Amino acid sequence: MRVIGDLKKVNLLVRKIKREGKSIGFVPTMGALHEGHLSLIRQAKRDTDFAVVSIFVNPKQFGPQEDLKRYPKPLKKDLALCRKLKVDLIFLPQVKEIYPDGFATFVNVFGLSEMLCGANRPGHFRGVATVVTKLLNIISPDLLYLGQKDAQQALIICRMVEDLNFPVKVKVMPVVRDEDGLALSSRNAYLNKSQLKEAQVLFKALSLAKVMIEHGQTNPGRIIQKIQDLIQNKKQAKVDYIAVVDPQSLISLKQIGSEALVCLAVKFGKTRLIDNLRIRV
Amino acid sequence: MRVIGDLKKVNLLVRKIKREGKSIGFVPTMGALHEGHLSLIRQAKRDTDFAVVSIFVNPKQFGPQEDLKRYPKPLKKDLALCRKLKVDLIFLPQVKEIYPDGFATFVNVFGLSEMLCGANRPGHFRGVATVVTKLLNIISPDLLYLGQKDAQQALIICRMVEDLNFPVKVKVMPVVRDEDGLALSSRNAYLNKSQLKEAQVLFKALSLAKVMIEHGQTNPGRIIQKIQDLIQNKKQAKVDYIAVVDPQSLISLKQIGSEALVCLAVKFGKTRLIDNLRIRV
Repeated sequence: MRVIGDLKKVNLLVRKIKREGKSIGFVPTMGALHEGHLSLIRQAKRDTDFAVVSIFVNPKQFGPQEDLKRYPKPLKKDLALCRKLKVDLIFLPQVKEIYPDGFATFVNVFGLSEMLCGANRPGHFRGVATVVTKLLNIISPDLLYLGQKDAQQALIICRMVEDLNFPVKVKVMPVVRDEDGLALSSRNAYLNKSQLKEAQVLFKALSLAKVMIEHGQTNPGRIIQKIQDLIQNKKQAKVDYIAVVDPQSLISLKQIGSEALVCLAVKFGKTRLIDNLRIRV
Repeated sequence: MRVIGDLKKVNLLVRKIKREGKSIGFVPTMGALHEGHLSLIRQAKRDTDFAVVSIFVNPKQFGPQEDLKRYPKPLKKDLALCRKLKVDLIFLPQVKEIYPDGFATFVNVFGLSEMLCGANRPGHFRGVATVVTKLLNIISPDLLYLGQKDAQQALIICRMVEDLNFPVKVKVMPVVRDEDGLALSSRNAYLNKSQLKEAQVLFKALSLAKVMIEHGQTNPGRIIQKIQDLIQNKKQAKVDYIAVVDPQSLISLKQIGSEALVCLAVKFGKTRLIDNLRIRV
């Protein structure tokens, strides 16, 4: 496994790999790897000849009041996990290499970026789209792996890849959960014991929505109310949003038809967690 | 020479060329080719193994009041010119293939895009940056050729290529002028005989600025005043802007040091012409 920070070196290596006719699978991450990330990496190893993982905590996707500074950076552990999975290349750039002085170019996916998480995190998805564009150009992968946990992010990147004609195929992999149903997230590390326990309510809430829809409930308002009641029973939970949306457009459904994406963002203390469940009737 | 409109076919062909280890030179155009374009194409033929010219009148870079509909489209003549220069591939996409329903992603180079032409053509450079991003992803050239006539556009694309790590080298080629000094432009075709004659004043004005600077004039205000007087002597000329700027940042100079870019936009009737001259002391 090679670990490279220098953009030019990565570019040279990637071009060499391409010339050899090998396919490249790419998993962009902010580090603090968990089983969710590892599931993407394993898929990249299965699908392609050369698996690249980037570890870069992207400042452009954090708001001024957000957790950029305290975002976990367990680099040694991350590298050990990647080594175990036989990752071929870790791309580990410095912030000043990715955003040098005078940096001025941004990619924006309008519409999808302003709703749900975008409404509460202005500029967040612009930062995501911009860094992913850069990484795609640096790594030039054949396959890009994203997690369904960040459903909105995955949709935005798929839209961007299509709109801007990036020559890459995107695979969105299922949410990985712990035994209590909590979706794995690097931010779970912020939670104390009681918050961790309370956060189990999120998957219970999504599962409740699933049961309601499967039993014929077609009114999103009813579902949202039930979920909200369930979550607000937890002392430390503060709902950011709960929404029942079209899985492609993310527009709120007025009535549930053949499928729905139920998604939510809830704060426990200072820690904001997101989760979602796609439900087909 | 192959002429292809279909994105997937172009992509397949380009990938084949790449696999053969050939280099690709790319000249993006809106058609209505003149000697300016041809100078870029000749350079692409000299530098690379496979020269691609795109002909696409990009609606996203025209304002609602601009000349999208009447923009000249002498396709047969364009194709004949390209054939003569042994262009390898003409990429000739349809608008609905480049901007299908639901298209939502835009690339913006902040700062550089808002000044000069950007101030009078809001959204113009966002449209340019977006379509060039798409074309770079579709064609994946090794070398990209731009004309210095559109100085601001060239700077913006260079900035974008650097900021977003596109794996392409950009060559900006000199302005090509007719025997009277008029910079070649597809829009010159709109001018009637008297306007064509009056438009010769633009290069005279730039040349006057050069003489003034070479004779020690360091005050941009004085130069702009002189140029303006000269241009406004012409009955049909209406100045959009005249500026003496830093050639990299496009910020107006307060005092001229070692170099300056003198640039201007002037309307003759409904036709807006731009020109510029880089002056080193």
